[in-house]
Amino acid sequence: MGLESLAVPNGGLAEDEAAILAAKYQAVRRCTEQLCEPLAVEDYVIQSMPEASPVKWHLAHTSWFFETFVLLPRLPGYRIFHPHFGSLFNSYYNAVGPQWPRAQRGLLSRPTVAEVYAYRAHVDEGLAKLLQPARRDLLADVAGTLVLGLNHEQQHQELILTDLKRALAGNPLRPVYSRPVGPAGDSPSLEWLTFPAGVVAIGHEGDGFAFDNESPRHNVYLRGFLLANRPVTNKEFLAFLRDGGYERPELWLSDGWAARQLHGWNSPLYWERQGDDWFVMSLGGLRRLDPVEPVCHVSFYEGDAFARWAGARLPSEVEWETATASVPIAGHFLEAKHFHPAAGIAPDDRGPVFQLYGDVWQWTASSYVGYPGYAPPRGALGEYNGKFMCNQMVLRGASCATPRTHARHTYRNFFPPDARWQFTGIRLAKDS
Amino acid sequence: MGLESLAVPNGGLAEDEAAILAAKYQAVRRCTEQLCEPLAVEDYVIQSMPEASPVKWHLAHTSWFFETFVLLPRLPGYRIFHPHFGSLFNSYYNAVGPQWPRAQRGLLSRPTVAEVYAYRAHVDEGLAKLLQPARRDLLADVAGTLVLGLNHEQQHQELILTDLKRALAGNPLRPVYSRPVGPAGDSPSLEWLTFPAGVVAIGHEGDGFAFDNESPRHNVYLRGFLLANRPVTNKEFLAFLRDGGYERPELWLSDGWAARQLHGWNSPLYWERQGDDWFVMSLGGLRRLDPVEPVCHVSFYEGDAFARWAGARLPSEVEWETATASVPIAGHFLEAKHFHPAAGIAPDDRGPVFQLYGDVWQWTASSYVGYPGYAPPRGALGEYNGKFMCNQMVLRGASCATPRTHARHTYRNFFPPDARWQFTGIRLAKDS
Amino acid sequence: MGLESLAVPNGGLAEDEAAILAAKYQAVRRCTEQLCEPLAVEDYVIQSMPEASPVKWHLAHTSWFFETFVLLPRLPGYRIFHPHFGSLFNSYYNAVGPQWPRAQRGLLSRPTVAEVYAYRAHVDEGLAKLLQPARRDLLADVAGTLVLGLNHEQQHQELILTDLKRALAGNPLRPVYSRPVGPAGDSPSLEWLTFPAGVVAIGHEGDGFAFDNESPRHNVYLRGFLLANRPVTNKEFLAFLRDGGYERPELWLSDGWAARQLHGWNSPLYWERQGDDWFVMSLGGLRRLDPVEPVCHVSFYEGDAFARWAGARLPSEVEWETATASVPIAGHFLEAKHFHPAAGIAPDDRGPVFQLYGDVWQWTASSYVGYPGYAPPRGALGEYNGKFMCNQMVLRGASCATPRTHARHTYRNFFPPDARWQFTGIRLAKDS
Amino acid sequence: MGLESLAVPNGGLAEDEAAILAAKYQAVRRCTEQLCEPLAVEDYVIQSMPEASPVKWHLAHTSWFFETFVLLPRLPGYRIFHPHFGSLFNSYYNAVGPQWPRAQRGLLSRPTVAEVYAYRAHVDEGLAKLLQPARRDLLADVAGTLVLGLNHEQQHQELILTDLKRALAGNPLRPVYSRPVGPAGDSPSLEWLTFPAGVVAIGHEGDGFAFDNESPRHNVYLRGFLLANRPVTNKEFLAFLRDGGYERPELWLSDGWAARQLHGWNSPLYWERQGDDWFVMSLGGLRRLDPVEPVCHVSFYEGDAFARWAGARLPSEVEWETATASVPIAGHFLEAKHFHPAAGIAPDDRGPVFQLYGDVWQWTASSYVGYPGYAPPRGALGEYNGKFMCNQMVLRGASCATPRTHARHTYRNFFPPDARWQFTGIRLAKDS
Repeated sequence: MGLESLAVPNGGLAEDEAAILAAKYQAVRRCTEQLCEPLAVEDYVIQSMPEASPVKWHLAHTSWFFETFVLLPRLPGYRIFHPHFGSLFNSYYNAVGPQWPRAQRGLLSRPTVAEVYAYRAHVDEGLAKLLQPARRDLLADVAGTLVLGLNHEQQHQELILTDLKRALAGNPLRPVYSRPVGPAGDSPSLEWLTFPAGVVAIGHEGDGFAFDNESPRHNVYLRGFLLANRPVTNKEFLAFLRDGGYERPELWLSDGWAARQLHGWNSPLYWERQGDDWFVMSLGGLRRLDPVEPVCHVSFYEGDAFARWAGARLPSEVEWETATASVPIAGHFLEAKHFHPAAGIAPDDRGPVFQLYGDVWQWTASSYVGYPGYAPPRGALGEYNGKFMCNQMVLRGASCATPRTHARHTYRNFFPPDARWQFTGIRLAKDS
Repeated sequence: MGLESLAVPNGGLAEDEAAILAAKYQAVRRCTEQLCEPLAVEDYVIQSMPEASPVKWHLAHTSWFFETFVLLPRLPGYRIFHPHFGSLFNSYYNAVGPQWPRAQRGLLSRPTVAEVYAYRAHVDEGLAKLLQPARRDLLADVAGTLVLGLNHEQQHQELILTDLKRALAGNPLRPVYSRPVGPAGDSPSLEWLTFPAGVVAIGHEGDGFAFDNESPRHNVYLRGFLLANRPVTNKEFLAFLRDGGYERPELWLSDGWAARQLHGWNSPLYWERQGDDWFVMSLGGLRRLDPVEPVCHVSFYEGDAFARWAGARLPSEVEWETATASVPIAGHFLEAKHFHPAAGIAPDDRGPVFQLYGDVWQWTASSYVGYPGYAPPRGALGEYNGKFMCNQMVLRGASCATPRTHARHTYRNFFPPDARWQFTGIRLAKDS
Repeated sequence: MGLESLAVPNGGLAEDEAAILAAKYQAVRRCTEQLCEPLAVEDYVIQSMPEASPVKWHLAHTSWFFETFVLLPRLPGYRIFHPHFGSLFNSYYNAVGPQWPRAQRGLLSRPTVAEVYAYRAHVDEGLAKLLQPARRDLLADVAGTLVLGLNHEQQHQELILTDLKRALAGNPLRPVYSRPVGPAGDSPSLEWLTFPAGVVAIGHEGDGFAFDNESPRHNVYLRGFLLANRPVTNKEFLAFLRDGGYERPELWLSDGWAARQLHGWNSPLYWERQGDDWFVMSLGGLRRLDPVEPVCHVSFYEGDAFARWAGARLPSEVEWETATASVPIAGHFLEAKHFHPAAGIAPDDRGPVFQLYGDVWQWTASSYVGYPGYAPPRGALGEYNGKFMCNQMVLRGASCATPRTHARHTYRNFFPPDARWQFTGIRLAKDS
Repeated sequence: MGLESLAVPNGGLAEDEAAILAAKYQAVRRCTEQLCEPLAVEDYVIQSMPEASPVKWHLAHTSWFFETFVLLPRLPGYRIFHPHFGSLFNSYYNAVGPQWPRAQRGLLSRPTVAEVYAYRAHVDEGLAKLLQPARRDLLADVAGTLVLGLNHEQQHQELILTDLKRALAGNPLRPVYSRPVGPAGDSPSLEWLTFPAGVVAIGHEGDGFAFDNESPRHNVYLRGFLLANRPVTNKEFLAFLRDGGYERPELWLSDGWAARQLHGWNSPLYWERQGDDWFVMSLGGLRRLDPVEPVCHVSFYEGDAFARWAGARLPSEVEWETATASVPIAGHFLEAKHFHPAAGIAPDDRGPVFQLYGDVWQWTASSYVGYPGYAPPRGALGEYNGKFMCNQMVLRGASCATPRTHARHTYRNFFPPDARWQFTGIRLAKDS
């Protein structure tokens, strides 16, 4: 069981395993806090839109998860940190109880950031007790939930960055979160990889950790198709824009065109034109648009319209997973210390297919629904994924803001088709 | 080529065929107007919500369709009826030109109903010229579009009834559109039909008419499943309601629960409680709820929640089509003069499966997306179906307000998951 | 007691007086129906915005007023026409009972127009009984309310025209209600009439009819001031517009500028630019803007901004009433058969001050509040005026859509400061 | 010239006067910062509603006022602190330039609180230069604006407290700003003071500072009236509430009832029922409702409804000013160190009229309009008051959150009739 998988074995925990789990817990929790080191107290507090949460809410909510699902049920004598935190930091678990309204998370100055860190420490202390060798009996029952909690916290690490970027980018002072690492390299030329028709199997199977929505593994009949060897670049997207892509309704889905009209979209989120030049707001401040970087911060609707303009289409998630099954996970992830403050990482050469992970999430043409035979777990944790299986589109891969140990080729990320503040890009497909 | 198919043969039209087409045109157009006979002038004008259109708009729009796509391109010397009707009655075809805003269709007192009927007569006159034997050369090119226009008008026949019902049901005077035909009979007992796993083919193929979204026929790998032999009844849905179904978030999708809260749903649309009794507003006025009728006017979200409560699920559209491929189309359709003003038709015995058509549309668990290999037609008519392939759910079967010649077992109806004003019900499925 | 006053004497009714009242009743009610003669049935039904009502609602509501406040309390054996009309046509009298929501008046196709006319006939029949000589005993008690009902109906005559104009003007077919009478003449040159400081008395006193809000007559200390001898013309307002009046926030009240931004105002309501020419939509269809007509369909905010631009201000209602106390009521009123389908009547010469009545209502700088010592009547009719004394501005004079017998120099009309669909214009004042 | 007046003499500044002005500047600026001492950094950042601003915005905006209107025009070589602050902290002065949207003030984490304090220090340093004896020549020109700036900052001191209270009261953790000073004493019994009819003069006149909206002093004809000797108490308001005051539309203005329905008001803001007891959220945390304190945090609409229920009415501002002209200013003001965290101060005995100042602002029945002959100053500072003279009601007196040197018996405070988050209460009047 390596750090990269965060899975828990069936059938109890050996002493070493408890130690490894404790190490993982430490690593994930510290990573969250390291991400916040460049922040001013004020940056933790604000909420730029209902869909994005304050950083301090993320810090508290991830702790609430461990308190609620691991410590309270399992650690004898555990004392909750504060009687109101149960509702303040419950995100959406109706089975647990009422929730502070999501759109009002930015209206709370208290608890302060310092109090939230104290909450984290309190929870860490509880976990430390549970992870002691002497408590292996208790741990065995909750090890799976604990690992789920770590994966959950990793999801919120990415959200901390995307929500923070949304908040800072709206500030005319152009705050810088961290300086970029360096310029991107070249982009490989576009090639189409060919895949044959047939019955394929997709979905998670085996011992490693995966979310419930990645199962069960199941057969799908697939037509032959072509998949692009790399994501769409800024340069290519700029060509779409300059060809009137944002002005031609025939390129768009009906709901996409309505969203474009409603929000006044005429470029990806965070793009800014200054005369003839394009710039992009990033976690590293305002930068000149890099033509070879993957286009980022586009909605599903923009991805779909671009694909239509390009004479192609978005891949289904089955196609994506089938085509990439054997590709090792590599890229410029958050945890690899290669973190780029904006999307846009130079491609590294790993065979014929590039930038599957570590640059941008890739919109698919697939609605987010349960796999055939899918059933959510019993109890409150059944609300983790299952109840969102409507009105969202699946994204595949992983972005530059994803922790490396969190990427998985069966991973199903999902967002509404008009969402743009995640690190989301486009990989094209075609019928063969 | 019978009236029931409304298809047009490849390779030109024989004289008989032109005559048959003319007869079909007459039949469909007259049917629309017969549906309006019970109406007062005022009933044609109002728009109960943005999604529903005034009856007179439907009458004009269906004529606009023939004028725009058949007469103007093909009939030499055709004179348009009114220069503003091109935009007033364009529904959503951006390639044709601008459109009067949908939500404001009920703000137009003019053209009057009489003027709209004059418009219809003008278009009918044009079509009569085109359908003369002497014009077989012209007709051949547009016969396909003409047949499409007839199917289009049949869709609007159903919409006239659903939009009208929405408008009348909101009136405290309880207007009656037409008296019901008679009481429903019994409902068969619920049984589960079994279907095996394997690769199946679904979608339209062959000469008969079908919409573009029903093609191409393609293979799908299907797990074994069970399908209910009949729709869910009012009695069964009442048991869900009385068991707190509308108060238990754990039964609902997250977006479904939000819709339930936002709209204050606590029963199907048009249901009313009076003390301990339940009534339902219908096109025949307020009636006592009939326990054996299929539950109707529920959203996808309610169907999904009911299924979860019942320990079942909604079928995918693949399952529905596979299970019903060999069942002949029968039922109490609009055109069969068995029209019931509300959903709720006695089942007739046609083998082991009941009420596939002619009672209620049946929500499926399938998002409305293009079939593998689907491409919309070129030109404005490509907007007919393709651009709506997002944020909607597929419904299968046909309702009591569907014209009989319009039902087809490959038919894909689609509505957003919160829509309730169509004649929509529930058929359950299970994993086997 | 002449037709022009519609007042009722104290101390009972002589036989002649009952006959005169009956004649007045007939005249007012017939006038309402004559106004509707040019309409198609469809025109009665629609509601262009929440603040405007369908014509058939006005026809029914004015009848409801007589039924509720005159017939039901006083006519023995009176049978209400329909049990639901009590709430459907109650405008805002909470003491009477619940009300159909104002914004949804346009969603009701029933009662039909014919049924509404039957309702009117039913009420007229009841009134006829009450107005018989033999019922003088009954009549005496309700004569005051009956006269109030006639004044109320006259208010709705004006509203029928303004609401109808709003509905027809939004229709791209440019429906014509009636043809205009003829071109306007010249406009007198602008002069400033001077009035001295001192204690003055304003408000209604004496036997003639007046609304409660015109009393009590009371003293006011007034500074010296100047009042314009005529309203602002289209030509003058066009100069404001061309001088950037709609683009310069320094000319506007803060709330006015916000309204201008929110609604995108850049000209009076119903104005349209075609190249270099300006047109105006009127009840007579689209007409070229007449430079000498009074500017019409401006909000209080636009009037206020115009006045600031012109180095003047709006008059207070005290100033208006003081300055015009001795001017006889004349003008081109609705009832004088000089009705112009749009505001904009040639001035007639009646001394040094022009167009006080019969062209446009004139915004004042006065908030609508009760006069010192004002108290609304007891009972439901106390809701007629008193409860609206907040957030509205007083208008003085009368418009071309006002019945002549309804104008009065103590009359206080009132609308919110952003209302533009009434026949509202501007008369300037200055400090002396 | 004492600290209490903050006025500037006509005709230049003697050396002593410059020193006094410098001392006043110091005192006011320090007072602002002292008010913030109990705050956590997070408390400075949030914005509870569009009408309320973050504390750090107030701190910066008041400094922007001095920078923009005093330092930039007058201090040679003054360097602006930051190029973006000009728009970020411009509240509403269109003549100065664009403004960051008011509703989005809480979306800015930067500048940080520390940076805002640095901004304040930078401005203070500039002012110190200007206030040096050697700069008396420069100072003379801007002394009036400087004094205006100090009064402006005092207004924001009150807003800091009201906005902060709104933000903290919405937090379920019930944060405490500061502990209350002690219990209130008794309330005097209600008596009605009598005032005769006649021509009176109101408005500011003389050397002391006053805002432009308090001038010119002018004559008003006043009817005889009665004024209550003290504000309405919590106990009295509770009687209204228990008598169904919030459920009886006949007691309310039409717009008031609509506001009550829209917002679901059923008690004053910050009141909470727990079983049979009432509590009130205050700057000192949740406290039991004190029956003898003046009722606070009611809208004009609630004040108006209460008055109607009580058989009285609200006073006009003319009545209030006339009745209180000779009463010395006393009470429990912010600066008197008697600050109560909530409204509700024991009355002190100062003749026959109690609690005019230092407890609650008192709604009047007067719309906020310019006095006869009022004209705003030229230039950007003309926007200070004049452009708000619409849709607002005048309040008189001063509250417990008002600085003592800021109270004045001609003072005209104003807020929209539905505002409840200021320290607003009720004093009754009657016709005599």
